[in-house]
Amino acid sequence: MAFSGEELSNKQVILRDYVTGFPQESDMYVITGTAKLKVPEDSKGVLVKNLYLSSDPYIRFLMGKRKPEGYSSFSSYTPGSPLTGYGVAKVLDSRNPGFKEGDLVWGITGWEEYSLITPPQRLFKIQHTDVPLSYYTGILGLPGLSAYAGFYEVSSPKKGDRVFISAASGAVGHLVGQFAKLMGCYVVGSAGSKEKVDLLKNKLGFDEAFNYKEEHNLDAALKRCFPEGIDIYFENVGGKMLDAVLLNMRVRGRIAACGMISQYNLDQPEGVRNLMSIVYKRVHFEGFSVYDFYHLYPKFLDVVLPYIRGGKITYIEDIVEGLEKGPGAIIGLFKGRNVGKQVVVVAHE
Amino acid sequence: MAFSGEELSNKQVILRDYVTGFPQESDMYVITGTAKLKVPEDSKGVLVKNLYLSSDPYIRFLMGKRKPEGYSSFSSYTPGSPLTGYGVAKVLDSRNPGFKEGDLVWGITGWEEYSLITPPQRLFKIQHTDVPLSYYTGILGLPGLSAYAGFYEVSSPKKGDRVFISAASGAVGHLVGQFAKLMGCYVVGSAGSKEKVDLLKNKLGFDEAFNYKEEHNLDAALKRCFPEGIDIYFENVGGKMLDAVLLNMRVRGRIAACGMISQYNLDQPEGVRNLMSIVYKRVHFEGFSVYDFYHLYPKFLDVVLPYIRGGKITYIEDIVEGLEKGPGAIIGLFKGRNVGKQVVVVAHE
Repeated sequence: MAFSGEELSNKQVILRDYVTGFPQESDMYVITGTAKLKVPEDSKGVLVKNLYLSSDPYIRFLMGKRKPEGYSSFSSYTPGSPLTGYGVAKVLDSRNPGFKEGDLVWGITGWEEYSLITPPQRLFKIQHTDVPLSYYTGILGLPGLSAYAGFYEVSSPKKGDRVFISAASGAVGHLVGQFAKLMGCYVVGSAGSKEKVDLLKNKLGFDEAFNYKEEHNLDAALKRCFPEGIDIYFENVGGKMLDAVLLNMRVRGRIAACGMISQYNLDQPEGVRNLMSIVYKRVHFEGFSVYDFYHLYPKFLDVVLPYIRGGKITYIEDIVEGLEKGPGAIIGLFKGRNVGKQVVVVAHE
Repeated sequence: MAFSGEELSNKQVILRDYVTGFPQESDMYVITGTAKLKVPEDSKGVLVKNLYLSSDPYIRFLMGKRKPEGYSSFSSYTPGSPLTGYGVAKVLDSRNPGFKEGDLVWGITGWEEYSLITPPQRLFKIQHTDVPLSYYTGILGLPGLSAYAGFYEVSSPKKGDRVFISAASGAVGHLVGQFAKLMGCYVVGSAGSKEKVDLLKNKLGFDEAFNYKEEHNLDAALKRCFPEGIDIYFENVGGKMLDAVLLNMRVRGRIAACGMISQYNLDQPEGVRNLMSIVYKRVHFEGFSVYDFYHLYPKFLDVVLPYIRGGKITYIEDIVEGLEKGPGAIIGLFKGRNVGKQVVVVAHE
């Protein structure tokens, strides 16, 4: 790749203003600014060319004026500035001893063509390039580590367990389901369209799946799929689904709570009534954050890379091309538009 | 103690009919029946004279036609028959090799003067009689073991933790608070009267306490007592208090859910809205049942007996005399009438 001159044209996705309620594409806009070609001399930064960006539900938290209390160490976005998030990039220039020109990296970068990352605190060198680089936004990035840590570390799974996953065709859910099948569990997923349900049953090996939008009674749907109850619920949605699941948990069941996407954009969250089940059935309900499991990343790669290379896991990406599609890719998460991991391609190399 | 004849007069507390909604004293009645003096020859049973009965919230579950799904191995009561529950008794006759005449026992017995217990599955010989026998309905019985297991085993406490206990002057709560103080925690309790709040602060060593009925805003009350948030919530009440607590949990806080007494008599439980805190703050919310911790009883005695003998723990009993007072003692639990452990004295020896 060759440049000329001192500055590059740099397309960016900018937050217009703090968001309340349901986010809109118009809460963001795309501009073309400029980027310096070199890392400033007095910096320990890294200049990268962004290749793939990860569109994740947590981005919504950072669009609000106040992010949820307790939620990670990230700060809210600043209106007028580009979004940040996880992505895959190529190092163009570095004054940091951990990185050099030509390195491929994944981690926190900007929603723009070129980012000066200083300091590169959450940036990691990509060691394995025999798999598509975009995988480092998903199955080999935070969604994959979330699925791995939430399932293996939080939900205490064992062979034969009856596992339910909501948002099961999403970035995390479709991996959890396959981890659970590989362990010998009975696995059911819920999703929001016939296409997604077919995918779960016919392509991803789920034992059962249902479209929650077509079920008038979620409790009945769960009882149909789990006549003997649920050992593990991998929670991605919250609200009404959680309430119905609580009625169907087995004694000493586990709920690993990764997210509650149905609640993120409500002015007031829905009330969940069936919490007494937690007492009666001695349920273990635990929220987790992937940020607490970074130390497992090498172990995670040792497990997941062979699954990918051996074709044991089917990984689904929903790819849009170009930063202009970025705002739509974010909003789509909350409308259930994506199937599998939502990726925005900034550049292919 | 001497008898004459083959039968004894036997006062009993009988369930009138299955209960729905808030229980009333009139849901029970007291009759005088008869009891045989001897265990039948073909039985492995034990005939006991009941001394102290434990009035516990779970009794409400067994008064309903269907007990809550997953709740212990006990069956619902039978209308027209005496209630059963935990108590302290003296063995009058035994055809079971584990017990002999004159033994003092605690465990499952009937709400009556004399009970034939066959088989005596949950009946335990009392080994230590240097403490009041009534203690085996409370601090040395299931409430004590619940407090011990819930605090030490479920809530992962450590010195300096900020601990909140609801229903803090109750049978379990007032012991949890003292265990937490003995560990060097900061301890706050809520209760439903000025008398109880004074007891917590002035007699039981709580750092702070508040009357939830006088607080218009539970969130504000908790923020006042826990400016830095709550590490451990020992949950006895559910509903609005749980909702407010969720807003005040610290990152990686623990909720040990022993009960949710505010919800037991509602046709529909209250909705709890702030469950997203479980995700954001990676909260560990675990329901537990003392029945899963029977194996810890010897270890528990090793800890608690020295506390009692050394005056390290103040144990509060609320004692009523006579089986006629039994129905009122049960209903009183749900009206917050009891202070400390509610005991019904059937006979003193």
